[in-house]
Amino acid sequence: MRSFTLPSRALEVEVSKQRTAITPTREENYPEWYQQVVRAADLAEVSPVRGCMVIKPWGYAIWENMQKDLDRRFKETGHVNAYFPLFIPKSFLEKEAEHVDGFAKECAVVTHHRLEEGPDGGLVPAGELEEPLVVRPTSETIIGAMFSKWVQSYRDLPILINQWANVVRWELRTRLFLRTAEFLWQEGHTAHATAEEAREETMRMLGVYRDFAEEVMAVPVVCGRKTDGERFPGAVDTFTIEAMMQDRKALQAGTSHFLGQNFAKAQEITYQTDAGDLEHCWTTSWGVSTRLVGALIMTHSDDDGLVVPPALAPQQIVILPVLRKNTDPADVLDYCEALAAELRQLRWRDERIRVLVDKRDLRGGEKTWQHIKKGVPIRLEIGPRDIESGSVFMGRRDKGPKEKQSVPRAQFVEQVGDFLTDIQQGLLDRARAFRAAATTHVDSVEAFEAFFQGDGGFAWCFAADDPSYEDLLKKYKVTARCIPIDDNDATGTCIFTGAEGVQKIVFAKSY
Amino acid sequence: MRSFTLPSRALEVEVSKQRTAITPTREENYPEWYQQVVRAADLAEVSPVRGCMVIKPWGYAIWENMQKDLDRRFKETGHVNAYFPLFIPKSFLEKEAEHVDGFAKECAVVTHHRLEEGPDGGLVPAGELEEPLVVRPTSETIIGAMFSKWVQSYRDLPILINQWANVVRWELRTRLFLRTAEFLWQEGHTAHATAEEAREETMRMLGVYRDFAEEVMAVPVVCGRKTDGERFPGAVDTFTIEAMMQDRKALQAGTSHFLGQNFAKAQEITYQTDAGDLEHCWTTSWGVSTRLVGALIMTHSDDDGLVVPPALAPQQIVILPVLRKNTDPADVLDYCEALAAELRQLRWRDERIRVLVDKRDLRGGEKTWQHIKKGVPIRLEIGPRDIESGSVFMGRRDKGPKEKQSVPRAQFVEQVGDFLTDIQQGLLDRARAFRAAATTHVDSVEAFEAFFQGDGGFAWCFAADDPSYEDLLKKYKVTARCIPIDDNDATGTCIFTGAEGVQKIVFAKSY
Repeated sequence: MRSFTLPSRALEVEVSKQRTAITPTREENYPEWYQQVVRAADLAEVSPVRGCMVIKPWGYAIWENMQKDLDRRFKETGHVNAYFPLFIPKSFLEKEAEHVDGFAKECAVVTHHRLEEGPDGGLVPAGELEEPLVVRPTSETIIGAMFSKWVQSYRDLPILINQWANVVRWELRTRLFLRTAEFLWQEGHTAHATAEEAREETMRMLGVYRDFAEEVMAVPVVCGRKTDGERFPGAVDTFTIEAMMQDRKALQAGTSHFLGQNFAKAQEITYQTDAGDLEHCWTTSWGVSTRLVGALIMTHSDDDGLVVPPALAPQQIVILPVLRKNTDPADVLDYCEALAAELRQLRWRDERIRVLVDKRDLRGGEKTWQHIKKGVPIRLEIGPRDIESGSVFMGRRDKGPKEKQSVPRAQFVEQVGDFLTDIQQGLLDRARAFRAAATTHVDSVEAFEAFFQGDGGFAWCFAADDPSYEDLLKKYKVTARCIPIDDNDATGTCIFTGAEGVQKIVFAKSY
Repeated sequence: MRSFTLPSRALEVEVSKQRTAITPTREENYPEWYQQVVRAADLAEVSPVRGCMVIKPWGYAIWENMQKDLDRRFKETGHVNAYFPLFIPKSFLEKEAEHVDGFAKECAVVTHHRLEEGPDGGLVPAGELEEPLVVRPTSETIIGAMFSKWVQSYRDLPILINQWANVVRWELRTRLFLRTAEFLWQEGHTAHATAEEAREETMRMLGVYRDFAEEVMAVPVVCGRKTDGERFPGAVDTFTIEAMMQDRKALQAGTSHFLGQNFAKAQEITYQTDAGDLEHCWTTSWGVSTRLVGALIMTHSDDDGLVVPPALAPQQIVILPVLRKNTDPADVLDYCEALAAELRQLRWRDERIRVLVDKRDLRGGEKTWQHIKKGVPIRLEIGPRDIESGSVFMGRRDKGPKEKQSVPRAQFVEQVGDFLTDIQQGLLDRARAFRAAATTHVDSVEAFEAFFQGDGGFAWCFAADDPSYEDLLKKYKVTARCIPIDDNDATGTCIFTGAEGVQKIVFAKSY
């Protein structure tokens, strides 16, 4: 495991001077740290079903908040939700050659439709299907089959559909949220009359993903086009948002595909033009998944556990009543409930503020640390003395665990939205600074090699989209992440092949 | 097909005097009418995958509105959402004997994890699994397996979990929404320290379903306990909400199961009591599905198509601009958009009012009829004359298609919430009146037979929970729907067996 530089904020916390809540730390063993953060925050766990995870309530609530925000953005851009079958007949998958090649190796296949008693008394599969069914790894083929029925004339276009669903891609080596056999996602599928419109749609949804990642997840991303070798099976062009994790690796956080007429031709999605001609449609698809939860964890969390941006936190504020002997607990609890009720009336980013009063009978320190490990943005400790002085004792998850602040109650209520905004923005700024520090522009193979022999990160360099230098990439376990769309107007000479007039490509190790 | 009496409201519309939008009518052929309503409202359609349906945007939006309201109710009663694997190992299903018997005949079985090229060039299943996986028909066994890990002590209880998911029960004869191989649902699963708590939970969730059905779906339901023969496989007691469709048949719209310690014993869900003893938990499960959309359709819709209660309508108001020659269309469109924007600022039942301006270039009549068939609660036609007079021309889906009313614009904006409430309440009242007219209390086998030889409906009668008179029920294709909880305090003599001291059971034909 390579060592790497911690983001500046974590350094301020002076992790090294204290025992951390998560063992090992990021520096000691990043992959194991990740597993321990997931466990300590009670986000998910492995299930007895190979490759499948159980998403626990705290993890699922983060996903629900992601869904809610994305769903609003999809609807605002004119999309409607629908639902298509879980099963895809084998023959459908076979219609698009590249597509089936991409997914055949990792399909869950349904071959029977009942269980019956076998010779040894146990149940065995029975009722063999005439045609095996594949559990959807993605739905281009089944949705395309419906589109071909729904589209007759140019008046039926565009069709702008999204589906929230589970999908299955059989994986042998799994990691919670990052790579599991079953995962949850959304898949947008659209059909258009012209290539231009379909390309516009592809870019519009890439923009939606970028805005969501930055505004809601506080995760800065590089938007770009995938190189030929990294395209979605069957697509003409795949666009991606690439985020940088704290081990400086890239994580593909969402993709938007311009499918050209490939699927329309394979599935006969045709329409009659205004002039009466029959044309094939132009289609797109785009998706993000529960993998985003993994990206969120690895971008913001620290050696004390999960850090969740307020926009996605299941609880944005936890109130911790501090009960002392010689004081009536009811007084403190009533005071806390009243404050919670007042805060819940307020809105931040057009949503009611989410507040939990943790009244469990647990030691105060244990309780506080649980919420730190779960990443709750703001903790308020309230005891008899705070009530007397009319104040709350605030801890923020973006600051050190012992760095707390007494705030007059009225001021807290008035400024709570500002505090949340400050935390949200601070996390984005910190992630941007970390990425900036771990990004370099290299102009020679030597500099490229030196970069990836060192800490690594994102390397931008003029490079041809050409598999001829793949061996060099493999040597450093590096891949072309994308050809960035922004800040990438200049062309130059490929550092690997000498080809002229090429754009920059971002290279990195990746998940 | 038996004839039946139409609900009073539909009679007022005097269906017989005009051509109806849906052919056949309910009286002519109820099952076919249902299919045609689904089609005309564009709610769903059969897919190329046997037994699976495609839920189209208008149908899915109704389901989303159901989900949103139910989800709020679940959270308000202390439940949290989580997600468990789609696949259930065969051995898990086998742990509870009654349970596996109930589902083995209708399981989709995954036996392989990839496709590879076969001898004839096509793809064939490969990578056989050591243990077949069943696509979940319900999740008691997999969730129970997790509960057994999560629960150690009484302090870990209760566990109150809900899951929104797809499930598969292989069906040969399918009907859109009512019976499909794959359907969407929610399944609540809870574990408790005592039988009392688990029974309370079972009844609490039954109450949530009843309130949802009546307040949101405007569907009155009979709440009761299932007879022994109709219990969920593995449950101690199953409770149900039973709704009456317009063909007087019952539809089971939701169930809540008290599972006793059956699943806890099969799966070793144990906890240590305060005193240090090891006890089995008491568990419950409860669910409603996309079948509710079928119930909604068959309760309210008429011979002009779908009728949706405002609380569930994807669009509550549609504004239809009326464009005339010699008038600038922009004037009318701007006026309509301004009204829509104003209405969207208003809230009804704590949600912003949902308004569509239908600007499509279509004949006015065709457009209007599309929205009637889709069940939009309020239609507003607005043309130059209405603008001049400062009014809107309102049609309501709960009134006849030609029964329209001019309302001053300001008055409409002020009263829009009242109009929606009036429609919502009117639908519930109408459904209640229909059910009352088709419900009877019978006190002899002769009266029972006469009732089901006639129009039928819900027959309440003193009856033992005893399979001995099943043949009589079969003769009329009638089943015991439930032993009602409300208005069922008296006991009497079973009309079938002469047993003393039995409660009333509700009998009906059913879906």
